[in-house]
Amino acid sequence: MPSKKLNIGMIGYGFMGRAHSNAFRKVNNFFDLEYQPVMKAACARNPEKLQAFADNWGWESIETDWRKLVDRDDIDCVDIGSPNDTHYDIVMACAERGKMVLCEKPLAMNAEQGEKMVVAVEKAGVANMVWYNYRRVPAISLAKQLIDEGRIGRVFHYRALYLQDWTISPELPQGGAGLWRLDAAVAGSGVTGDLLAHSIDTAMWLIGGIDKVSATTETFIKERQHQLSGTKQEVTIDDACAFLARFDNGAVSTFESTRYARGRKNFNTFEVNGADGSLYFNLEDPHRLQFFDNKHESHIHGWQSIHVTDFEHPYMDKYWVPGTTIGYEHTFVNCLADFLKSLEAGQAPVRPNLRDGQETQLVCDAVLKSAKTGSWESCKA
Amino acid sequence: MPSKKLNIGMIGYGFMGRAHSNAFRKVNNFFDLEYQPVMKAACARNPEKLQAFADNWGWESIETDWRKLVDRDDIDCVDIGSPNDTHYDIVMACAERGKMVLCEKPLAMNAEQGEKMVVAVEKAGVANMVWYNYRRVPAISLAKQLIDEGRIGRVFHYRALYLQDWTISPELPQGGAGLWRLDAAVAGSGVTGDLLAHSIDTAMWLIGGIDKVSATTETFIKERQHQLSGTKQEVTIDDACAFLARFDNGAVSTFESTRYARGRKNFNTFEVNGADGSLYFNLEDPHRLQFFDNKHESHIHGWQSIHVTDFEHPYMDKYWVPGTTIGYEHTFVNCLADFLKSLEAGQAPVRPNLRDGQETQLVCDAVLKSAKTGSWESCKA
Amino acid sequence: MPSKKLNIGMIGYGFMGRAHSNAFRKVNNFFDLEYQPVMKAACARNPEKLQAFADNWGWESIETDWRKLVDRDDIDCVDIGSPNDTHYDIVMACAERGKMVLCEKPLAMNAEQGEKMVVAVEKAGVANMVWYNYRRVPAISLAKQLIDEGRIGRVFHYRALYLQDWTISPELPQGGAGLWRLDAAVAGSGVTGDLLAHSIDTAMWLIGGIDKVSATTETFIKERQHQLSGTKQEVTIDDACAFLARFDNGAVSTFESTRYARGRKNFNTFEVNGADGSLYFNLEDPHRLQFFDNKHESHIHGWQSIHVTDFEHPYMDKYWVPGTTIGYEHTFVNCLADFLKSLEAGQAPVRPNLRDGQETQLVCDAVLKSAKTGSWESCKA
Amino acid sequence: MPSKKLNIGMIGYGFMGRAHSNAFRKVNNFFDLEYQPVMKAACARNPEKLQAFADNWGWESIETDWRKLVDRDDIDCVDIGSPNDTHYDIVMACAERGKMVLCEKPLAMNAEQGEKMVVAVEKAGVANMVWYNYRRVPAISLAKQLIDEGRIGRVFHYRALYLQDWTISPELPQGGAGLWRLDAAVAGSGVTGDLLAHSIDTAMWLIGGIDKVSATTETFIKERQHQLSGTKQEVTIDDACAFLARFDNGAVSTFESTRYARGRKNFNTFEVNGADGSLYFNLEDPHRLQFFDNKHESHIHGWQSIHVTDFEHPYMDKYWVPGTTIGYEHTFVNCLADFLKSLEAGQAPVRPNLRDGQETQLVCDAVLKSAKTGSWESCKA
Repeated sequence: MPSKKLNIGMIGYGFMGRAHSNAFRKVNNFFDLEYQPVMKAACARNPEKLQAFADNWGWESIETDWRKLVDRDDIDCVDIGSPNDTHYDIVMACAERGKMVLCEKPLAMNAEQGEKMVVAVEKAGVANMVWYNYRRVPAISLAKQLIDEGRIGRVFHYRALYLQDWTISPELPQGGAGLWRLDAAVAGSGVTGDLLAHSIDTAMWLIGGIDKVSATTETFIKERQHQLSGTKQEVTIDDACAFLARFDNGAVSTFESTRYARGRKNFNTFEVNGADGSLYFNLEDPHRLQFFDNKHESHIHGWQSIHVTDFEHPYMDKYWVPGTTIGYEHTFVNCLADFLKSLEAGQAPVRPNLRDGQETQLVCDAVLKSAKTGSWESCKA
Repeated sequence: MPSKKLNIGMIGYGFMGRAHSNAFRKVNNFFDLEYQPVMKAACARNPEKLQAFADNWGWESIETDWRKLVDRDDIDCVDIGSPNDTHYDIVMACAERGKMVLCEKPLAMNAEQGEKMVVAVEKAGVANMVWYNYRRVPAISLAKQLIDEGRIGRVFHYRALYLQDWTISPELPQGGAGLWRLDAAVAGSGVTGDLLAHSIDTAMWLIGGIDKVSATTETFIKERQHQLSGTKQEVTIDDACAFLARFDNGAVSTFESTRYARGRKNFNTFEVNGADGSLYFNLEDPHRLQFFDNKHESHIHGWQSIHVTDFEHPYMDKYWVPGTTIGYEHTFVNCLADFLKSLEAGQAPVRPNLRDGQETQLVCDAVLKSAKTGSWESCKA
Repeated sequence: MPSKKLNIGMIGYGFMGRAHSNAFRKVNNFFDLEYQPVMKAACARNPEKLQAFADNWGWESIETDWRKLVDRDDIDCVDIGSPNDTHYDIVMACAERGKMVLCEKPLAMNAEQGEKMVVAVEKAGVANMVWYNYRRVPAISLAKQLIDEGRIGRVFHYRALYLQDWTISPELPQGGAGLWRLDAAVAGSGVTGDLLAHSIDTAMWLIGGIDKVSATTETFIKERQHQLSGTKQEVTIDDACAFLARFDNGAVSTFESTRYARGRKNFNTFEVNGADGSLYFNLEDPHRLQFFDNKHESHIHGWQSIHVTDFEHPYMDKYWVPGTTIGYEHTFVNCLADFLKSLEAGQAPVRPNLRDGQETQLVCDAVLKSAKTGSWESCKA
Repeated sequence: MPSKKLNIGMIGYGFMGRAHSNAFRKVNNFFDLEYQPVMKAACARNPEKLQAFADNWGWESIETDWRKLVDRDDIDCVDIGSPNDTHYDIVMACAERGKMVLCEKPLAMNAEQGEKMVVAVEKAGVANMVWYNYRRVPAISLAKQLIDEGRIGRVFHYRALYLQDWTISPELPQGGAGLWRLDAAVAGSGVTGDLLAHSIDTAMWLIGGIDKVSATTETFIKERQHQLSGTKQEVTIDDACAFLARFDNGAVSTFESTRYARGRKNFNTFEVNGADGSLYFNLEDPHRLQFFDNKHESHIHGWQSIHVTDFEHPYMDKYWVPGTTIGYEHTFVNCLADFLKSLEAGQAPVRPNLRDGQETQLVCDAVLKSAKTGSWESCKA
């Protein structure tokens, strides 16, 4: 049973607010940890909606000003699930007040912000994590494990897709509640920061750093009605982005993301090709990892579909029985469990921290720059 | 927000105890319901383990005698997750005391018990449900919806498999904690009651009643050490069971289950073939339903892989966003939500109730009888 | 280059006549063999259509009476592709004249005929083969190889399906050219002899003999117009057949076939579950064999999809390059190559011979009998 | 029955020589055409090996000098299956002599050669075709048909992969018989001309012209032993190539090819995403086309796996029965049938002709140029 409490203040109550709340509420049901998060306060601007949200998920109190939340002495750890344009100010305030930080991705609006945020939390010495939750999909964690076990060998190729189709209709408005991801002033970018950031974080975790990129972006629908103002406005985000990448280790790579791939809902895939084996993953079938193992005898060579639900698989011993799946929400539970575990004596700091998030931010910035310049751009600071 | 409380007493704290506790704890986070279950008391024989379990999941109190639990005035609804040989006595006691009943499957040790249980709860007029949770896998609920929409037409065939592989090792003991399903004295039967009962419940829900069956069963490992006594004993359960079935509507059908299918973990599949379309489902990929629609033009005919994660799909509007999956545990949440909803004014009683569970029990009994007689046996009472 | 000629006379010019002709025409292009088949004469009743057929495929001459064909001194080997009710008489005549026999499946109208045919060819000492061509699908041959290599271990289960959907329409007539398979007087039975015979031959080749069966059959459309007479007549074949089987080695098994499975075209599948591994095959994806190998470390366990197109795979070194597929027609080419090879000095007689075909006939007869008696029936002569 | 003869002279007897010979030999067995190709002469430098080849496939005579072959009065049509560096001279000679040309892909060593070849054959007015055989995979032809039927709508994205793994071993030599594709002096380029040329041809056929590209190439193994000289030499081909492309219609696109993708044998895939639907194809499962049709009701949306084996599908009415597959070799048969058909009175010239092949050559050249310059390069002449 947990012997220590960790008081949480959460900012934002949208989609990520729900996902994080669920994680705070259930993590101790499944993981044996010293720390128990206490759902101390939720924060957002609309008090009525916020109170209903807090009641539904069990937050003890509410705040409508995030600065007050950060200032509260009974808050140990600030969880940031608000839009991207708020991350910088909140993280800087947390660092100043010595609060732990759990920050949604992407880290910042750009790498300039990101660098300051990293410096601030490192200087403050507070525990910090970016919610790149897909690292904790058991099948992706298993991919990392297989690579670390040396089963892939020298990596020749990496290719990643993140395809969705929810913005194809020109009738879809942009901006405001639930749709701020279509507003560059709030989101920073379109699919690059929202979707490719995930792909990039996963890639660098698995394979290592990216050296340089050549990119192209497109905005297919040029104008949309703004949800709040009701007027037609130029669409400023990238609807689609594709880029070539060269990794530090020489691997040749492609990345692509779009919200205009009819029939793809959450088609976040990657493939790694190494001298000794290959891996393939698709988030639409999140409990499976495809593995080609060149060590088998040649007449039985074939892609193995690993059903990542056994007790031997990452995180799966915490849940049900072999053959039964967990869902999207558990990726957040797993992240949180790893964060809480890292606070125990003798544990290594959790990853991805803000420094890792900044590495991804640098690639995103280089991608967006390359799309403008038409040249290869470096991803290094 | 829920305005009414429903006090729950739960018996059993094994695998199903965890699954049910999780459902009680989460259902109101996702579903908008009048009733909120209150986790009043958990019951099992070992007080130390039970207390740890209760603390972990948030049960307010514990009981070590199920009769006391049933008798408690602050318990409205008794949830039965204990081994099969306890169901009869508990249900009869609940009926006598006018308590609602949530009973794990299979309903009983045999149809003779089952009939008495059904009569008792119907006479008592208490709300009752059997946890055939797979009906509430969104893809299976969608299959039911497509059939009800008339998309399949006259049904010619139904075939169901439920394959696992966890008992292949002769070293695996039988009996006792976690392994009572291998002990016929406690479980009633092997795969027939444990796995085929699910397949039969789903089949009859989708297609209608089963008229008669011809079955064969096998026990591959003849002796196993008993976990408690430590001595080798005869294995009395069926390790595998296959049967032919004829439905009331004339459909020709096969069912098979085993725990000796190497590589199959939770391979619970069904296929329905109708004049106008077909459906296929596999619980190892629970978020997909395969649908062949004969109405399409012939050159684009093909099996459609429906990714059952959209807001238009059963239950999925309660959870996350299109493209994201839910897990095994949510099938119990969905069951519970439907049960709680059925208690609201003007709602129809929940299904499957104990009467439905008894229909499945009758088929299981006929299957086991046919395996002994070598003849076709009727499934009718 | 081939140094010896083998003069072929072929009876029947329907679907199988085309498939066989193609094989005779191509086999030496791909296989290095001593024997070259010479397409001496084709035989059928309609001389105009037959002549066009012969011209198209390169048959040197035609005959309209099969007895004359069998009698011709320039014919070494008689290939029988005519309807099932003709097999007996032709084989008996071939045996009498000492001609080699290549016979389409199923061997005969029933096991009584079959036994006489086997005795006759064995007594005559002529080379003989039944065209159970699916044994020569490279993936099925590979399955046999993996089993012979001991990779599966003790077999617990075998399940086979052969599903099609081409007779669902009640408007489809029966009888006559192209539709004699729907006429029991000509075909002997429906799906049992046409489709399940394939499944049974494959099963017994892979796993061993079948001891006994319990079956059910159904005729969904009770009357159809006869193609020749134009009148409505009772449908006498089995539209669907399902049976339970117990193998000599104790394996528990199910078989099912139908022409009423909407969306299934040539869904001839089997799965073998052994203590050490499992295999799955589907003729709709004929170049793939699924293999679960329990010897791998547990965290990388998974079904391997073997793309059976490498030079190391059966027959595939004769064709193109790894990754390229062969088609349905090549299963006949492979059969023929194996037959021709068996004629070379020191080679074992080809399998399946008529004796093997009779083993399958015995199972078919037991299945049809069981469907009538409602009892388990023995498959032994 | 064919009433006209077309005398063929074929140059080259390697892999493509076998594939073409097989097509010449079988096309009239399956297709009802006016013309029958006559296998008049095969040409290569080694007379012994060539004679054996000619005997095996039925070529009437042999030539060891391709100029003599082109000059022969009894040759109507020259088929070029020899290495890429020979295409230019042969085509120019054919044009001069007024011979029809069937040319293997890629058309030429570069676009400069290609343009001259196109001008020459157009001026000569001879029938001409490039063997981009994958257009005639029935599933790819069906993709074209579905697009032409307007089922996809405005195209947003196209992505193509062509992945193989056969050159990973550093021990593999380069150059000489069977390995000239690894020698840039003979092949012109590596994967770009060998594999991506296929991908580009298919893409432009389906979607339209490519405007510009940004590419990267890599040679992973820097030195290999030359098969003929036995000495280590620098590897001059591209082992891998990835590029971004913008189509004339605005579609955003990625292409990638490599021979270093462990576990991929002939993984030639494409995906088209349009406003109304999407298509996906993989040459490793050549008989399937995946189609997402947005016109269906939303709760049954799903990718349809079209088993392209029905009589309604391109070319499939010429072969066997629904559910049975054809193989790699039949893509050449289909090409040849279309070529022969185009020679009949009133038929349109066959496509892809040399002009089409040149369009692909221009893209290949731009890709290779971009990989050197690091800039976007135009694909226009």
